[in-house]
Amino acid sequence: MIQIDPIAIRQGDRLALSRALTAVENNAPESRDLQSALFPFTGKAHLIGVTGPAGSGKSTLVNQLAKHFRQDKDNQLAPKVAIIAVDPSSPFTGGALLGDRIRMGDLAGDKGIFIRSMASRGALGGLANQTAAFVTVLDSAGFDLIIIETVGAGQAEVDIASLAHTVIVVEAPGMGDDIQAIKAGILEIADIIVVNKADRPGAENTIRALRVMLEMAQRKFDSHAVAGKHLLDATPAPTAETQQPQSGWLPTIHSTIAVDGKGIAPLIDDVQRHRQFLRESGEWQQKEAARLRRDVHALIREALLTRWWEKLDENQFAQILDDVIHRKYSPIEAVEKLL
Amino acid sequence: MIQIDPIAIRQGDRLALSRALTAVENNAPESRDLQSALFPFTGKAHLIGVTGPAGSGKSTLVNQLAKHFRQDKDNQLAPKVAIIAVDPSSPFTGGALLGDRIRMGDLAGDKGIFIRSMASRGALGGLANQTAAFVTVLDSAGFDLIIIETVGAGQAEVDIASLAHTVIVVEAPGMGDDIQAIKAGILEIADIIVVNKADRPGAENTIRALRVMLEMAQRKFDSHAVAGKHLLDATPAPTAETQQPQSGWLPTIHSTIAVDGKGIAPLIDDVQRHRQFLRESGEWQQKEAARLRRDVHALIREALLTRWWEKLDENQFAQILDDVIHRKYSPIEAVEKLL
Repeated sequence: MIQIDPIAIRQGDRLALSRALTAVENNAPESRDLQSALFPFTGKAHLIGVTGPAGSGKSTLVNQLAKHFRQDKDNQLAPKVAIIAVDPSSPFTGGALLGDRIRMGDLAGDKGIFIRSMASRGALGGLANQTAAFVTVLDSAGFDLIIIETVGAGQAEVDIASLAHTVIVVEAPGMGDDIQAIKAGILEIADIIVVNKADRPGAENTIRALRVMLEMAQRKFDSHAVAGKHLLDATPAPTAETQQPQSGWLPTIHSTIAVDGKGIAPLIDDVQRHRQFLRESGEWQQKEAARLRRDVHALIREALLTRWWEKLDENQFAQILDDVIHRKYSPIEAVEKLL
Repeated sequence: MIQIDPIAIRQGDRLALSRALTAVENNAPESRDLQSALFPFTGKAHLIGVTGPAGSGKSTLVNQLAKHFRQDKDNQLAPKVAIIAVDPSSPFTGGALLGDRIRMGDLAGDKGIFIRSMASRGALGGLANQTAAFVTVLDSAGFDLIIIETVGAGQAEVDIASLAHTVIVVEAPGMGDDIQAIKAGILEIADIIVVNKADRPGAENTIRALRVMLEMAQRKFDSHAVAGKHLLDATPAPTAETQQPQSGWLPTIHSTIAVDGKGIAPLIDDVQRHRQFLRESGEWQQKEAARLRRDVHALIREALLTRWWEKLDENQFAQILDDVIHRKYSPIEAVEKLL
């Protein structure tokens, strides 16, 4: 067992940091104590989730965000940025490593930036647990901004992105302007929506479609809120009497051409504005609490299963599975017998 | 509690079928006994998973597949087709219902076809459990083909699609020809790859890129297999001595224009050919066993958690969560205290 010194991590020692993340990724025995040792020093980082479909240019956008946050990098006070690329990559292609190398590019050599892919298909405890553990390590290491980038727009990816304080959903023209965008089911988690590749044909249509969808969602939200039902727990509802506009955060829409760096500066302004909103409205604390509650739930799930497996009689289990396969009883009946 | 008669379902009564699926979706108490009653009559249907990124035209392709399978629909022996659209749709937009209405189109009125969306964001027991339960009901109702369509290309979607005997991955030009396709991490689960919207510019490039990736994967597979390591459990490996070509199924690539029905017939031929391959090679049984094993695992996970929640002291839980939020101890330590 390699000893990893929590103090080295907190001092920003990159080797200790890499080792810690690897230990977490492998679910190494020492990683649990390490996380507990680091946890009291967390809660400072601004977590930014970036999600959206493949091909929308998320990685390029994330690189540009990091570059802009680090533009003042010779200043000791410039924010330090970590990127976690949650990457259900192929065992064949080694996508994660390849991705790391490609994305480093002009970010390499800056000590205030740290990039790590999670090549964690079938990870122990699931992607969400691993991401949470990565966040604990990086937050305690003093990174001011942690960008969590998820590939795809599936439920797992959405769940992970929604760990963040600020959620950016990236679309590209020709992908998000039809019923598919509605189906994606990710817009309601967005704080900021980015239409990237805005020089492509159809960008205007995509932006218009997104506006309409947001307005529809907003109207539904308002009518629900007036009726006393809150679809979004964290957003204060307008009162029926005054019909005031909602005092919460309304998702904003940006268009960018990430590959040329266009539109990145106003996007960053909005990220900062959202952070300020969270701080002033008290939502920051609420989001923190929700995130930690979810972490605890996920760990309970994992621990219950692990304990049960340890106590299991494997022969009995194999026999019962065999009976299910031969349709002697259903999976539901099998589980009743097993527990 | 509405009584749902298993016999009515097995006789293909559509009202009973709809009610059963709703009961499953709501995790209604009667749904568990119902599933157990129906389970002995399952194991006949050919499960076809269709997955791929949003905007690739999956729904249109699935409709065309269903139409072609049903072209001989006046014949009593024509295969009956069910479609499960796993749809993490927005609570705002009601995407699932909308989708059902749009997709019915020219399929409506055919009694040998049944379409159901799962609007199951945050479903009890997860999407995979629900899909498995839907499959049990539809399989026992005598549907010969069950097409499971998942939106997006996230891990959850891939897991669900991989429940199927035959997995079709759909791409579209301009989405799958760069590093994003590698990242998607779904190619290694594909039995058949479809490049849809093949009339779009870049279709040839996409097909070429996919071919190269498959060849790379195949080479890696071969070298691993020769070294005695099997990356794909279910595929028989060539022996080092003879260097015979692999006797398993090599993923095939199709190009289609689903909206015009182009390329559907050869695709269906390939689906049939894959089915025959599974039957003859014994992989059908292996896939069935793997699927049921996963169902049992998923149900165990759900049951352990449910039982634990029932026994939980809520006040203690709230107190511990509060302590975590105030960083008195870490989530890991909290779980140790709770269990």
